[in-house]
Amino acid sequence: MNIAVAQSGGPTAAINATLAGVCRRGFVSEKISAVYGARNGIEGVLKDDLILLNDRLKEDVDLRMLSATPSAALGSCRYRLPRFEEDATPYERIREVFAAHEIGAFFYIGGNDSMDTVDKLSRYFSSIGSDIRIIGVPKTIDNDLCMTDHTPGFGSAAKFVNVTLAEIARDTDVYNTKSVMIVEIMGRHAGWLTASTCVLHKRFTEPHLIYLPETPFTLDGFLRDVREQLSKQDKVIVAVSEGVECQDETYINGGFTPGTVDAFGHQYVSGIGKFLEKAVKEQIGCKVRSVELNVSQRCASHIASRTDIDESQHIGAAAVDAALAGLTGQMMIFVRKGDDPYTVDILPISIDGIANEEKKFPPEWIVGGNNVSDEAIPYFAPLIDGEAEVFFRDGLPLHVIL
Amino acid sequence: MNIAVAQSGGPTAAINATLAGVCRRGFVSEKISAVYGARNGIEGVLKDDLILLNDRLKEDVDLRMLSATPSAALGSCRYRLPRFEEDATPYERIREVFAAHEIGAFFYIGGNDSMDTVDKLSRYFSSIGSDIRIIGVPKTIDNDLCMTDHTPGFGSAAKFVNVTLAEIARDTDVYNTKSVMIVEIMGRHAGWLTASTCVLHKRFTEPHLIYLPETPFTLDGFLRDVREQLSKQDKVIVAVSEGVECQDETYINGGFTPGTVDAFGHQYVSGIGKFLEKAVKEQIGCKVRSVELNVSQRCASHIASRTDIDESQHIGAAAVDAALAGLTGQMMIFVRKGDDPYTVDILPISIDGIANEEKKFPPEWIVGGNNVSDEAIPYFAPLIDGEAEVFFRDGLPLHVIL
Repeated sequence: MNIAVAQSGGPTAAINATLAGVCRRGFVSEKISAVYGARNGIEGVLKDDLILLNDRLKEDVDLRMLSATPSAALGSCRYRLPRFEEDATPYERIREVFAAHEIGAFFYIGGNDSMDTVDKLSRYFSSIGSDIRIIGVPKTIDNDLCMTDHTPGFGSAAKFVNVTLAEIARDTDVYNTKSVMIVEIMGRHAGWLTASTCVLHKRFTEPHLIYLPETPFTLDGFLRDVREQLSKQDKVIVAVSEGVECQDETYINGGFTPGTVDAFGHQYVSGIGKFLEKAVKEQIGCKVRSVELNVSQRCASHIASRTDIDESQHIGAAAVDAALAGLTGQMMIFVRKGDDPYTVDILPISIDGIANEEKKFPPEWIVGGNNVSDEAIPYFAPLIDGEAEVFFRDGLPLHVIL
Repeated sequence: MNIAVAQSGGPTAAINATLAGVCRRGFVSEKISAVYGARNGIEGVLKDDLILLNDRLKEDVDLRMLSATPSAALGSCRYRLPRFEEDATPYERIREVFAAHEIGAFFYIGGNDSMDTVDKLSRYFSSIGSDIRIIGVPKTIDNDLCMTDHTPGFGSAAKFVNVTLAEIARDTDVYNTKSVMIVEIMGRHAGWLTASTCVLHKRFTEPHLIYLPETPFTLDGFLRDVREQLSKQDKVIVAVSEGVECQDETYINGGFTPGTVDAFGHQYVSGIGKFLEKAVKEQIGCKVRSVELNVSQRCASHIASRTDIDESQHIGAAAVDAALAGLTGQMMIFVRKGDDPYTVDILPISIDGIANEEKKFPPEWIVGGNNVSDEAIPYFAPLIDGEAEVFFRDGLPLHVIL
């Protein structure tokens, strides 16, 4: 049989590593003749826009370089299938395209929406008595999926955030004057990425304050915390999640809170850093700067976590194994066996009934609403460990463009 | 004799490599007994706050790790000496401290202000018949110093900008919708760092538009350029210098210039990116995002240029050689001998009479006010070549903290 793979949802630095894992296992399996990639997720299947990956990624180095390429090499989409009981048209089209290319298994690498597609597609094919297998592989820098210990892509995002924050701490440290540096980190509803900065406490005193969306946030409390820190040392480094729910009236009315949308209906939640910068400037009066880490959090392949990239390849390969074993309607997950030495099992679980709810950062690891306990360090530390292979030529990164 | 070294001005990823170069040469010279570091620049000399670096950086690996540490390990300052003809007090204090520590040569690693200090100090010591030698080593990510082919620190900043921009281009590329990504790059008056993104054209089509402070900038022209690019391809990547002189009234009055606030009361020092983002959203209506690369441009040691870090060490060592040869009142410079193969000489030049003016990006390399000629690539390419050594333990960078 042949197999098809597609990518969906927001980019990460590891989503192509999972694609490489699917390809690598698919290329060597005697049961699989061809591995097709669908462009722009399920839309590529609907449009019969498939490319033969066996041709494009012939050499081992191609797959390694693909793993070092950020974002989604096949392109992504935000398409959501209707329920097939209500509108079977797209499903019939998918069946047609799969039949034309003799696709026996389809792998969807993506976030919650993609897992919804996996669920719907697998139920559709089961309902028509087809044995086409549908397997989902999760990815998100937010680490907010239930069932899995962590998500592919999270470790690399966390590594970028922590390496950058350590460098920003050195940068902030140079003048012998009081100053505050506010670093705004992605995470709309769950604070995992911001919380991961607690691993820096293994080596540095920074960050001095960590604010997550999981605890109430007030401007007064923030300013009190900063003042207290400034009484103890000259430099205060703050890690703040873009998703903290600041109850301040000015902030809520200022157009930077969740719920306000831009012209395209996208929520514009970044902005807490600039807001807090202004508040420190006006109400404390010391030197202050804010940095929004922005999209590099999801695409900084040059400083990806080796653990994350390796695991992302493995989970892609394991998805192929699951399909070859006859499974369908499954999502692949990580089950942690130990922190030190760190080991994980990769397992398929039935996607039917997986709650589509966000996994929040555990309250027992939050300290006083403004920091993260050292007890969380063993959870995060292995995920950022190791430096992934990066390919450079003439000083510039090499990316696979399909 | 003993020598002293200090750092001054804004941080870069290479200023500690120059410190390591001074130390390495100082440690092996038979003429030099001790290498002292002054904390927070010339202020550390005035306060007699010197630390013995021979003790702190004993092993070869210490110096290599120092070279991989961003920012200024000895701390920095913005202190400006008065003219000694008007107020000799600080000079006498410096003489006293140098005498107490038997300092025969002083090395100042810094920007324009630091070179001013080198000039004044060397003239002071000459005027009193002292043979204490004063040598300056430049550094700036802005690359805007005259006389030298380029500045230590620039190559690493340019490498970070280019690697990040290539990754952002992949990130922008995933959806099959029209979108604009605006990347705001440091450089208040000179566009070297923004212009360096032309090296990406060796491999990628991005960035499609490059705007520098050296050419007039209008919002209308920018929107026309973006519309034209959008007619040719779906994604438009824009590299814009924070220092472009936007003549638009809204920009000038609208709160995106230093000291003013935007409609939400948020203060913007930098802000051309956000301003242009808003303009594209309102006037073109496609998906648009802006990214301010911020302080990582000057402190991202994890992706420093090997050429830059190596040269920054060498220029520090050469400064010690110049002092040992009896020179004073000198600034060390790079003289390029060839682009391919790339070679530079490191020479001392008399600091007396060096114009304190900014070196602008050459007009002959600017194309149509919105791009940079491929003829500039051979200038930039060698400066970002190679990846500097980085030290990691447990996934986090190791920094030398003195």
